[in-house]
Amino acid sequence: MSATHSGTARVEFWFEFASTYSYPAAMRVGAAARAAGVALDWKPFLLGPIFQRQGYESSPFLAHADKGRYMWRDVERLCAKHGLAWRMPSAFPRTGVLAARVACSHVDAPWLPDFVRAIYTANFAEDCDIGTPAAVRDALVRAGVADPDAALAFAQRDDEKPKLRRNTEAAQARGIFGAPSFVVGAELFWGNDRLEDALDWARR
Amino acid sequence: MSATHSGTARVEFWFEFASTYSYPAAMRVGAAARAAGVALDWKPFLLGPIFQRQGYESSPFLAHADKGRYMWRDVERLCAKHGLAWRMPSAFPRTGVLAARVACSHVDAPWLPDFVRAIYTANFAEDCDIGTPAAVRDALVRAGVADPDAALAFAQRDDEKPKLRRNTEAAQARGIFGAPSFVVGAELFWGNDRLEDALDWARR
Repeated sequence: MSATHSGTARVEFWFEFASTYSYPAAMRVGAAARAAGVALDWKPFLLGPIFQRQGYESSPFLAHADKGRYMWRDVERLCAKHGLAWRMPSAFPRTGVLAARVACSHVDAPWLPDFVRAIYTANFAEDCDIGTPAAVRDALVRAGVADPDAALAFAQRDDEKPKLRRNTEAAQARGIFGAPSFVVGAELFWGNDRLEDALDWARR
Repeated sequence: MSATHSGTARVEFWFEFASTYSYPAAMRVGAAARAAGVALDWKPFLLGPIFQRQGYESSPFLAHADKGRYMWRDVERLCAKHGLAWRMPSAFPRTGVLAARVACSHVDAPWLPDFVRAIYTANFAEDCDIGTPAAVRDALVRAGVADPDAALAFAQRDDEKPKLRRNTEAAQARGIFGAPSFVVGAELFWGNDRLEDALDWARR
């Protein structure tokens, strides 16, 4: 059943692999949506172009030192609260472009959620540079992908690459300004804190 | 008993009367702290000088249109969730300087929490300009203050006025960059969403 042809409750989960607060959301959203009986659409996108339109050269957490300091401690506390592994990354923000391309090209693959979680785990629990092809390939292996090299190559085809830009434009069209974000119909919810509210809204 | 001489769990609640997200927090924090058995210190301060140091002329919600649009809808949803009255203010941000001076000068008065809630209700449920002496006086009356004119006059004495600036400087010293914020010992929690986490932390 598709979203437009059924009454199934659905939520779009918009995430960026560089985003710290997307990490706990990505690790929780699958089980939470399943428990709530809400169908889940994984929506990888890039924050870079969105932050640039806001006047930031990189992450706003780098531009605002107090907020950045707070964010690191807050995410550490959140991970402890949710029982998630956490290791302060030695580089931030890391580029998630290749990983996001793979996610866009294989968004309906059964291994997609495991791949997403493997990338986030590498970035925020293992301090790995997720920007390299080797790291992305490793996440594909961890997700049980039979032919990781083919999956990587497919995502880098010229006719596949525009998917990520289109997702990023679709995010902007929905008014998304940060990650993670959840969209339920016309309603936007921003932040890991809003996961439960978004699922509640989808079930109304 | 004072915070320094007892083992009582305590939380500081840092709020700014112009702040939208401080509204649901201010309406909830008294009952929530009481239910948790946590002592509460009301800490009025001004966001203006803090936002200016971040490079903003006014509220960041005015500087970032998408985020501003989202905030209004999000606060409306939050108020519905918490059963709080909500009316979109026709002016934002309103100056809460006089009200904050009154709160600073009477922070230990038994009527202080009711006064704080009356100001927030005027701003965000009744669309009143809380910047006027008449509106602040009205909130004092609603809080049951026997001599509202004396309370107002006291807060505007030259030897009382510095209290608000000192609170704002103390907020900055704690690394506070937005409102509402909660402080438990050395731990900072930012946002209405973190009220429960802050109280949990205080009880550890």
